[in-house]
Amino acid sequence: MTHNADLLLTNAIILTMDENLQIFEPGALAVKGDTIIAVGPEAEITRQFSGQQHVDCQMNILMPGLINAHTHVPMTLLRGLADDLRLDVWLMGYVMPVEREFVSPDFVQLGTRLACAEMLRSGVTCFADMYYFEEEIAKATSEAGMRAICNQTVLKFPTPDASSYEESLDMAREFITEWKGHPLIVPSVAPHAPYTCTPDILKKTAELARAFDVPLHVHISETAFEVENARKEYGMPVVPYVKKQGLFEAKVTAAHCVHIDEGEMRTMLHAGAGIAHNPSSNMKLASGIAPVKQMIDLGLKVGIGTDGPASNNDLDMFEEMRLASFLAKVSTGDPTALPAPLVLSMATRMGAQALHIDHLVGSLEEGKRADLILINISPLHNSPRFQRDPKGSYAQIVYAAKSTDVTDVMVNGRWLMRDRQLLTLDISELLAQSREYARKTDTFLIKREASVLSKLIAIGGATEEESFEVQAKAPVSDIQRILLALRKSQIEIIRFRHYREYDTYFYFDDPSQGYLRYREDHFIDEQGMITNVRSRLTHLGEACEHHFPQQVILSRSRYLAPATQSLRFYREYFKPEREVEIEKDRLRYLIKYKDTEFFINIDTIQKPKLGYFLEVKSRTWSRTDAERKAHLAIELIGYLEAQPEQITSQDYFEMVH
Amino acid sequence: MTHNADLLLTNAIILTMDENLQIFEPGALAVKGDTIIAVGPEAEITRQFSGQQHVDCQMNILMPGLINAHTHVPMTLLRGLADDLRLDVWLMGYVMPVEREFVSPDFVQLGTRLACAEMLRSGVTCFADMYYFEEEIAKATSEAGMRAICNQTVLKFPTPDASSYEESLDMAREFITEWKGHPLIVPSVAPHAPYTCTPDILKKTAELARAFDVPLHVHISETAFEVENARKEYGMPVVPYVKKQGLFEAKVTAAHCVHIDEGEMRTMLHAGAGIAHNPSSNMKLASGIAPVKQMIDLGLKVGIGTDGPASNNDLDMFEEMRLASFLAKVSTGDPTALPAPLVLSMATRMGAQALHIDHLVGSLEEGKRADLILINISPLHNSPRFQRDPKGSYAQIVYAAKSTDVTDVMVNGRWLMRDRQLLTLDISELLAQSREYARKTDTFLIKREASVLSKLIAIGGATEEESFEVQAKAPVSDIQRILLALRKSQIEIIRFRHYREYDTYFYFDDPSQGYLRYREDHFIDEQGMITNVRSRLTHLGEACEHHFPQQVILSRSRYLAPATQSLRFYREYFKPEREVEIEKDRLRYLIKYKDTEFFINIDTIQKPKLGYFLEVKSRTWSRTDAERKAHLAIELIGYLEAQPEQITSQDYFEMVH
Repeated sequence: MTHNADLLLTNAIILTMDENLQIFEPGALAVKGDTIIAVGPEAEITRQFSGQQHVDCQMNILMPGLINAHTHVPMTLLRGLADDLRLDVWLMGYVMPVEREFVSPDFVQLGTRLACAEMLRSGVTCFADMYYFEEEIAKATSEAGMRAICNQTVLKFPTPDASSYEESLDMAREFITEWKGHPLIVPSVAPHAPYTCTPDILKKTAELARAFDVPLHVHISETAFEVENARKEYGMPVVPYVKKQGLFEAKVTAAHCVHIDEGEMRTMLHAGAGIAHNPSSNMKLASGIAPVKQMIDLGLKVGIGTDGPASNNDLDMFEEMRLASFLAKVSTGDPTALPAPLVLSMATRMGAQALHIDHLVGSLEEGKRADLILINISPLHNSPRFQRDPKGSYAQIVYAAKSTDVTDVMVNGRWLMRDRQLLTLDISELLAQSREYARKTDTFLIKREASVLSKLIAIGGATEEESFEVQAKAPVSDIQRILLALRKSQIEIIRFRHYREYDTYFYFDDPSQGYLRYREDHFIDEQGMITNVRSRLTHLGEACEHHFPQQVILSRSRYLAPATQSLRFYREYFKPEREVEIEKDRLRYLIKYKDTEFFINIDTIQKPKLGYFLEVKSRTWSRTDAERKAHLAIELIGYLEAQPEQITSQDYFEMVH
Repeated sequence: MTHNADLLLTNAIILTMDENLQIFEPGALAVKGDTIIAVGPEAEITRQFSGQQHVDCQMNILMPGLINAHTHVPMTLLRGLADDLRLDVWLMGYVMPVEREFVSPDFVQLGTRLACAEMLRSGVTCFADMYYFEEEIAKATSEAGMRAICNQTVLKFPTPDASSYEESLDMAREFITEWKGHPLIVPSVAPHAPYTCTPDILKKTAELARAFDVPLHVHISETAFEVENARKEYGMPVVPYVKKQGLFEAKVTAAHCVHIDEGEMRTMLHAGAGIAHNPSSNMKLASGIAPVKQMIDLGLKVGIGTDGPASNNDLDMFEEMRLASFLAKVSTGDPTALPAPLVLSMATRMGAQALHIDHLVGSLEEGKRADLILINISPLHNSPRFQRDPKGSYAQIVYAAKSTDVTDVMVNGRWLMRDRQLLTLDISELLAQSREYARKTDTFLIKREASVLSKLIAIGGATEEESFEVQAKAPVSDIQRILLALRKSQIEIIRFRHYREYDTYFYFDDPSQGYLRYREDHFIDEQGMITNVRSRLTHLGEACEHHFPQQVILSRSRYLAPATQSLRFYREYFKPEREVEIEKDRLRYLIKYKDTEFFINIDTIQKPKLGYFLEVKSRTWSRTDAERKAHLAIELIGYLEAQPEQITSQDYFEMVH
């Protein structure tokens, strides 16, 4: 007696990707509703089952759909935005400013549809996402008929979808409450990374995931820098730190894990955590090489992910599989490392395990959801086919197949692609909409890139300072004499500081851009010890007025910002044409002279060796006030026993060239 | 006044890939005969030129064809033959035996056509090949209309096309004489590698290349092992060694160069040598990571190659470009290393320089040959497109484009692909022929893999030994007593040797396979020093007769071969189910007893601790002789004062389990 199936797939080379890597050639598979009800040798299955619908697979490969274990799908709209940059410049200089400007429910829905289309066309049936407005991503994904784990991101900073992390946590809770049990979507939560989350976020997200029995997604140890900081700040590597916060109480999937040691691997193994390996992204951003062979040898479940299409720059799991294997081989020096059958497992069954959804998908087995793909392994670039070794099919898929060889895709028992035609998404419409976003993004960035100041403001804001500068400076031959003069009766010393100052000036070919000064101030105490260090970035507009005798007044825009990034960051971000370095020792007095406050700097310029200078400075918003102060400043230079006729308003860096 | 062109290409985004990386958007290009006669802004070109034919490029990318700087094209017929193996097992266990069996003019012609079809469909217009029957490769390539540097291989071993290297050199000379000046083919010579060539080959090939002013292609420092051996054998690394042989007198292109130091790079720079970088192959075979960024920073010209499709496993230069960039970034820790414009240069202009043909091709410039391609950079997986940064097009091609995005290909002024349809090759016919070769190869390998003995013979032959073994062995408690007995009057000692023997036995589940013994003999002199080491591999068939009393005679096949490879090699090649190790100290006497020669072994089995044994052995082709000797052997055991009733014919390893 035969059983009824909705669909019978016959005449296929079936790679079940089950624990025993069973192959049926020719094999057949029966689907009822959303579920695989049988898989096996063709003769056996066709004897036992009759299908309402019947598909002859023409001896193409039939296998489980690929699982993209870590990505940020809406970032399809940021693909190619900026490349060949260091992580911080790329992220804080380009990606985050654009995200702040554009990420919205509409943006993530469109980005998700584009990503679903691209992934379906490359044989992906399920992905794990981490982004903002995750409910909108869930909507777009389920409408496209794809399966996903949608992880609502929680960060300590304000995000495009929430002004505080408490708000993000509430959103995550609501999202999970509403979507839990959905046939395609596993709603979940993602504390972004230990260094972007507070301990409280790590605790709360783990509690949330546990309460709803959903997985938890997190970035772990992507860069060496992150690990170094963790050691400095917490006195331990990243994995023990997050364990301490209770993160592993949840079913964790940790993306990247490039820089974890064996102890950390064992911690994660013990905690049942899965790992998402992202070879393209780790290579392109030069994050490093994850010790994947070691992880798998230890027993960890490692899936493969593309990471976001802004750092990959695509969502091609075929490339990713090949890279995972190649990278493991070259980094271990062992060409037998991560052989093709294992890599294909990582992209299917083991990926499902790493994401804690292997009860649903990851292999073609009775009872699992019907998520499957057909691959043509006979095109020119994958011929001939040798039959000697049954494992040859795995090697064909991992080492020579292209994503474009995937012909048909089914998710949850429903065809989403037939003969390379998508059935639930309209590519040309999506592309038209994406071009509109690209145009807006271009306009935004072109405007921003047009001036150094707007680039400065884009990466975190800068405050505008008083636009009139009174600046009188004279060379002196003897510091002691000036110090004595400061004791004179008309001078009241309000405050004194001793600095060592390291300045780097960035110049641009277009003088209207002004210039940038990166200054590191080392505060020196009475014993000559450094007590504090502070870095500041100042954007100085062109000085546009020199009308006062002896050029004591300058009028120019001046923006001051704390320098939270490294000098190297700013160099790569602003790309100056030239740089000048100035190092000086500065004795800085805030004094009162004739009821007016001035800064008095007694400077020893050490690089280049320009000698000693006395500088009198003040800033004001008022032109009248500036003129009054300019007179006083010149007077003060004389009173302090320097030569008023030698006064210059030149900055030190201007004396250099 | 307008000039006449044969063809005008307009409305394109033209990446000229010239020294200044000029981009024309929209640009136009004029072709006359085989040559580019103008390229520039569309308005300018269309004003100056009228074309007999006119192609609107619809704002697709128009750029020079990609140059595959190192490959072995006929190996398309060996793609996927064997994967995830160590280099030696892969090469000597699979590739070379199959090559010995199948490589012929027909084989290389078919393989070349398949490769041309695959490469044209992925935007490659020119490649540098190194294989056998290179003239046949030149024929097939030029018939397909493609450009190639065809390097006739010279090796010190017999090859599929020559029984000696002198013959190969003659073939190379004839080939170059006949083909020099061909519009598509640069005929040339390839000493395979320093370790597979004699110094004389390196000298003669360089002289030949110089005499005809053609380039010379060679593998250099692909593995660390090669460099280690060069240091041992020549006392210097590989580059100085080949320089000493005069190789750099020729215009060299050196493939791989994975393990060269800065001094070697400077030597090659000074010699004007080019380099072909093969990231996929180097990663897949775990050869290592070539220091490409350092090479380019020093000024070396580095092209990109796929290597042969048997180790890649395809001929996809898009994958190769992406990998070159990714690998340089992750290995230097610098995400700005090998940025997209540089990588695309490596695959075009710099590749042509590395191959010494940049006067002909590599960029779209007036006077160069019309080798060009059109790429659609607007498919789903490469959208959206940002216009902000003109360099974005390079990043789109390197980081997101697929070979399948190439729509049209022209070589030497002739269209070879239009709208993804090949015009000079019939893919379905080629595939049918390749399937036939795959079937024959499968049959050959399946037959060979069917028995351990045939696998042994496949990797270099083994000599069959006498099939009757007389073997009588008895445990003894005291070696001194036996040594004294050896002095008895009826024993004449002909020869004595002292060994330490390390045996590894490979077992297979199927007992009819017999077993393999890998033996390392250490010869010990009178002072107890090791004077020599030899390794041998013995295949022992099932012992099939035990009819003689006390089981002294065995009849079994026995093949002996020098073990030229490592134990590890044989383990990975034969894949035994089980292994047993035996270590013993052996005093071995060749003696005469009653006019018959026997070997007498006095063995101390040290691993496992089995104790002392006296063994009497002889081998013969004759059953009658065996029976006579068996009687004598038993007698001899008694004469040497051991216990004949304890005689066993078991081998030591059989006593273990």
